[in-house]
Amino acid sequence: MTNPNHVASCPFCDASIQASAFYRKNNFISVYNIAPVLPGHSLVIPKKHLTSILDLDQEEYQEFFDAARTTLRILMKAFVTDSFDWSVQEKPEAGQTIEHLHLHIVPRLKHDLTHPGEWYPLVQRNDQDIIDSFNRPRLTSIELTAIVNELSKIAREF
Amino acid sequence: MTNPNHVASCPFCDASIQASAFYRKNNFISVYNIAPVLPGHSLVIPKKHLTSILDLDQEEYQEFFDAARTTLRILMKAFVTDSFDWSVQEKPEAGQTIEHLHLHIVPRLKHDLTHPGEWYPLVQRNDQDIIDSFNRPRLTSIELTAIVNELSKIAREF
Repeated sequence: MTNPNHVASCPFCDASIQASAFYRKNNFISVYNIAPVLPGHSLVIPKKHLTSILDLDQEEYQEFFDAARTTLRILMKAFVTDSFDWSVQEKPEAGQTIEHLHLHIVPRLKHDLTHPGEWYPLVQRNDQDIIDSFNRPRLTSIELTAIVNELSKIAREF
Repeated sequence: MTNPNHVASCPFCDASIQASAFYRKNNFISVYNIAPVLPGHSLVIPKKHLTSILDLDQEEYQEFFDAARTTLRILMKAFVTDSFDWSVQEKPEAGQTIEHLHLHIVPRLKHDLTHPGEWYPLVQRNDQDIIDSFNRPRLTSIELTAIVNELSKIAREF
């Protein structure tokens, strides 16, 4: 029988995701993207395999956005900016490739990309890479551990 | 003296925005985009001229995302889909062009664009058009009134 709380083929259900987690609160965790489109690119995800914002009950929904805002504050402090992009894509027709609910947070800096909107096509490709390839530069284990440790330290202030 | 709740140059503070509103709750309204990138493209905005998610107090923050989810339900029903993109951009370096806080909701349908991610560059151009040009196709007054009336009717069910 399938466990709806854990889908074997889902990278966000896999135990290995814990190595990327820098903030945990209630039913949600915040993880550093293994192949960030820009420095700081993180995801807020439910621990359970929920697929849609519409599936969260009212308490989970509040927890999700409370975790999201705290994660935002951690990232704004860590990357010394007050600019960011926030995005949720639901279903493949919206560009979602991993069906486990996730909110992208990407801190932004002046001139980090030639055109500010270019981050978005990068996110699209990035999602696919998590699943099926190593086409994009991925952090090494030591790089990931270093950034996760640093963000975890900042997270304790919030 | 500047009234922080109403900025004369801001299109989202202007009284004319009320013609686009189909849902109002607490300190937030949901408006149909005058130049939608796809059918259903709407924005959730605070009535006050707040510029950042980080500036909302805890009550306003909950109200914002409660209004956002209800707006999402209205749009999913009206446009007969369960797929959507959700996006917030903060500060020009993130691609924001109107500095009044706004959440984009874009209902998505299979094959509405050649590549699912193409909606995003359209949003970018769209933001600029609201401010300074009529370069993108804009709804006529009668089209806008018709869709706002229809969405207002559905909104009463939620």
